[in-house]
Amino acid sequence: MVEFSPMFAIKIVQVGKMKNGPLAELAQDLLKRLTPYARLEVRIVKELSESQTWWNDDSIKILLSEKGKTLDSVAFAHALTKWSDHGQRSLTFVVAGPHGFSKEVLAHADHVLSLSPMTFTHEMAYVILLEQLYRAGTILAGKIYHY
Amino acid sequence: MVEFSPMFAIKIVQVGKMKNGPLAELAQDLLKRLTPYARLEVRIVKELSESQTWWNDDSIKILLSEKGKTLDSVAFAHALTKWSDHGQRSLTFVVAGPHGFSKEVLAHADHVLSLSPMTFTHEMAYVILLEQLYRAGTILAGKIYHY
Repeated sequence: MVEFSPMFAIKIVQVGKMKNGPLAELAQDLLKRLTPYARLEVRIVKELSESQTWWNDDSIKILLSEKGKTLDSVAFAHALTKWSDHGQRSLTFVVAGPHGFSKEVLAHADHVLSLSPMTFTHEMAYVILLEQLYRAGTILAGKIYHY
Repeated sequence: MVEFSPMFAIKIVQVGKMKNGPLAELAQDLLKRLTPYARLEVRIVKELSESQTWWNDDSIKILLSEKGKTLDSVAFAHALTKWSDHGQRSLTFVVAGPHGFSKEVLAHADHVLSLSPMTFTHEMAYVILLEQLYRAGTILAGKIYHY
């Protein structure tokens, strides 16, 4: 069976700049490995507010929160296809800072996704998101990702 | 309220050596930060089998598997206290390699814990486990861990 692997357009909004160090290196490595599967844009903001321009585009907004819906990696891969209407709509993932999301920001979300019921630092959540996007790319392309 | 923070005795059994790189650096950093909360011993094995000595000691065995039970970070902290009988019994966490666990190994587990329904590389699972152990230490010590 040949699976269709859409080229996703993905924006990631991160609150606060990542410190240099091992997590930043991991993120850089994963961003490189993601290039066959997604056109990625990472935007760093100081805080999340409704007035910001990234929030007003027509992409599907997915907030990361441990209180959101959990998915396994295969379900996440298929959710990307569904949410993006097979790659036709762009997806914006939002990784909260240490203070989480305001009610106003939550109200504008299309989906609230949990990477785990456990609380991660927002830097770790960003790296895990990149790794799951990469894994989703390989799943949809029908490749075996040795882990 | 003063919380009791037990000094946990924790073994971590990992299948396969970690490659040098950012994840190994992160693990080293977390191992250092864990020293106030746990006496940690990391054992690297080539494969998991019942005949190995680590398996026959009287510690509580906790296997990490995405099919296991998920806990949030606070519940995980309290589970550590409960599983270890307030630090009196040692805990052995086992991070599977790419082939998961055999039925024989699973049968000997006291608990099967899931860090997330998502599949992580075993190197990532190891780092997340260390980070959650550190977070648990700070939770039990009543500290605020800014993330």
